Amino acid sequence: MFEDKNNPKEIENLGEFGLINHLTSQIKLKNPTSVKGVGDDAAVIAPSKNKQIVVTTDMLVEGIHFDLIYTPFKHLGYKAVTVNLSDVYAMNAVPTQITVSIAVSNKISIEALEELYEGMLLACEIYGVDLVGGDTTSSNSGLIISITAVGEAEKKEIVYRNGAKENDLICVSGDLGGAFMGLQLLEREKQIFNENPAIQPDFSGYDYVLERQLKPEPRQDVIEMFKELGVQPTAMIDISDGLSSEVIHICTQSGVGCTIYEDKLPIDPLTVSTAEEMNLNPSVCALNGGEDYELLFTISLEDYEKIKEQKRVAIIGHITSDKGKYEFVSNGDTVHELTAQGWNAILKKEDEN
Amino acid sequence: MFEDKNNPKEIENLGEFGLINHLTSQIKLKNPTSVKGVGDDAAVIAPSKNKQIVVTTDMLVEGIHFDLIYTPFKHLGYKAVTVNLSDVYAMNAVPTQITVSIAVSNKISIEALEELYEGMLLACEIYGVDLVGGDTTSSNSGLIISITAVGEAEKKEIVYRNGAKENDLICVSGDLGGAFMGLQLLEREKQIFNENPAIQPDFSGYDYVLERQLKPEPRQDVIEMFKELGVQPTAMIDISDGLSSEVIHICTQSGVGCTIYEDKLPIDPLTVSTAEEMNLNPSVCALNGGEDYELLFTISLEDYEKIKEQKRVAIIGHITSDKGKYEFVSNGDTVHELTAQGWNAILKKEDEN
Repeated sequence: MFEDKNNPKEIENLGEFGLINHLTSQIKLKNPTSVKGVGDDAAVIAPSKNKQIVVTTDMLVEGIHFDLIYTPFKHLGYKAVTVNLSDVYAMNAVPTQITVSIAVSNKISIEALEELYEGMLLACEIYGVDLVGGDTTSSNSGLIISITAVGEAEKKEIVYRNGAKENDLICVSGDLGGAFMGLQLLEREKQIFNENPAIQPDFSGYDYVLERQLKPEPRQDVIEMFKELGVQPTAMIDISDGLSSEVIHICTQSGVGCTIYEDKLPIDPLTVSTAEEMNLNPSVCALNGGEDYELLFTISLEDYEKIKEQKRVAIIGHITSDKGKYEFVSNGDTVHELTAQGWNAILKKEDEN
Repeated sequence: MFEDKNNPKEIENLGEFGLINHLTSQIKLKNPTSVKGVGDDAAVIAPSKNKQIVVTTDMLVEGIHFDLIYTPFKHLGYKAVTVNLSDVYAMNAVPTQITVSIAVSNKISIEALEELYEGMLLACEIYGVDLVGGDTTSSNSGLIISITAVGEAEKKEIVYRNGAKENDLICVSGDLGGAFMGLQLLEREKQIFNENPAIQPDFSGYDYVLERQLKPEPRQDVIEMFKELGVQPTAMIDISDGLSSEVIHICTQSGVGCTIYEDKLPIDPLTVSTAEEMNLNPSVCALNGGEDYELLFTISLEDYEKIKEQKRVAIIGHITSDKGKYEFVSNGDTVHELTAQGWNAILKKEDEN
């Protein structure tokens, strides 16, 4: 199926089945719910008793979601899996299996694909998930990765986006804006390199924001914390497109409004300094940057005592009964309207200033 | 997310969320196991009591798996779904949900995407399946469709590829080679059209083979037949890559050999006449053509009486104990070795003759 004439010993000679076998031969199923993995018409899963199944899928396209100039294949594989697991955790469920489909152009070597799968299997191992199936095909242009993740939870544990109620506290795990600053840094160095290939990028001191962009970790620990503390969030979503956008998703689906406070936004000092270095407003980056893969959730007031000492959680605002009214209170106590701008808007705005 | 500068009223203005909403707004969940569909971080499924879940995924890439020159979008959507359902039926399971991810270049209009989804939702309706989630993104080049299908069956009903035993009968549903002849016809007319756009393609009389290629139906009826007759196949696979290749998959995984008889191969008269018109051997097309999406299965001898009167099933050979020996007995009683050639080999061979 692959037709790389320049590289006959590589992908072409293995063929589609050979390639799948080659990439998946080392997989051993570990999750007790995985009955049958790669190698039949479908994978077979035995759901745990009384559990519901969650299914989520994401497609990553070269040139749109990732740039192979600065994305190592192993990191790419790791991230492709973790962004899907993040969606499973956002349902308050535990991921159990993934399937992986890839379309590969002939410019990609078998070694690169091996690294991609190494990254995917590392994420599977860390988060207790089995890779149980998929599809491998050729592409006329670029690499496309489509991953479907399956998870499970008891019916009463599952958290939707539509359960936020008036006076609920709005909480977020970890810190925000770092992944976006990592991306800006990579793009800046790429541009410098393109203009003068003799200048090697210098990333020293920026490890944290680069890692936030290239190797995000889904918040398994937060889901476990909920179980330990006996907290059931009223609504939850993971932050892939930016805090503003996700808060508005929760409010829209719950039929409520919100107030978010700028001085409560959790932002890492390195995110702040990197943003300032690039003449960007750190709060705007935190609100609209995206790709943080933190969990945004609401809890009822009565759970406040349980969660207030948790350092990994910041309470950033509360839910109001004003349906459709999304308030952002800035450090100067000015009230702004919160809008889902996305990162294009950040850069455009800064550009205009 | 979409950046079609030439077509600002179209996809770009809707944005990713708008596009997903637009395409999925009419979906009503019908399958009793579907708890939550599009609109949250993940879909939620409540598996029926005591059932196992099967999961399968396929990726279709423009220019590799389909040619938009002669593939109507509605047919493409329909086929993208049915080829996945075929994999579910090949496990002797009943499909219940699908997720759909698409990457779309800016040359594709919203109307085209609507037709694509119309075809997908038609297939969902006919086969009792819900579209419960997915992802929509932009692509720098071409259309990519990645579908994951979920199904369920009791543990004891599920049929794997590895259960074929010596003396089992090898059976196939429907007829073979038609989809391949349909493809050859479309490719021939495309070439004529490219050479002289004034000549309009004439497909009259070829309906059956064209439909086999453009709008394949998965064999739900065969799975229902098994239940009615009380037949449990010992091994099963769907024919996507060609009979030879699939027989060999069953034999390899079951650790057995096989004998297939040319005079037992079910081939439609139109497939025969179209093949002859193109100087192709109909049996070779049936063996290696692929994309028929028929079911290939083995049954134990004691089920012969139950199945022998079924017109939709042909018994084409039997399983032997000669592991790794795959025999094809031609009409002249000559014994050939069966190999998984794929359709490239057919065309090359005919070309050399």
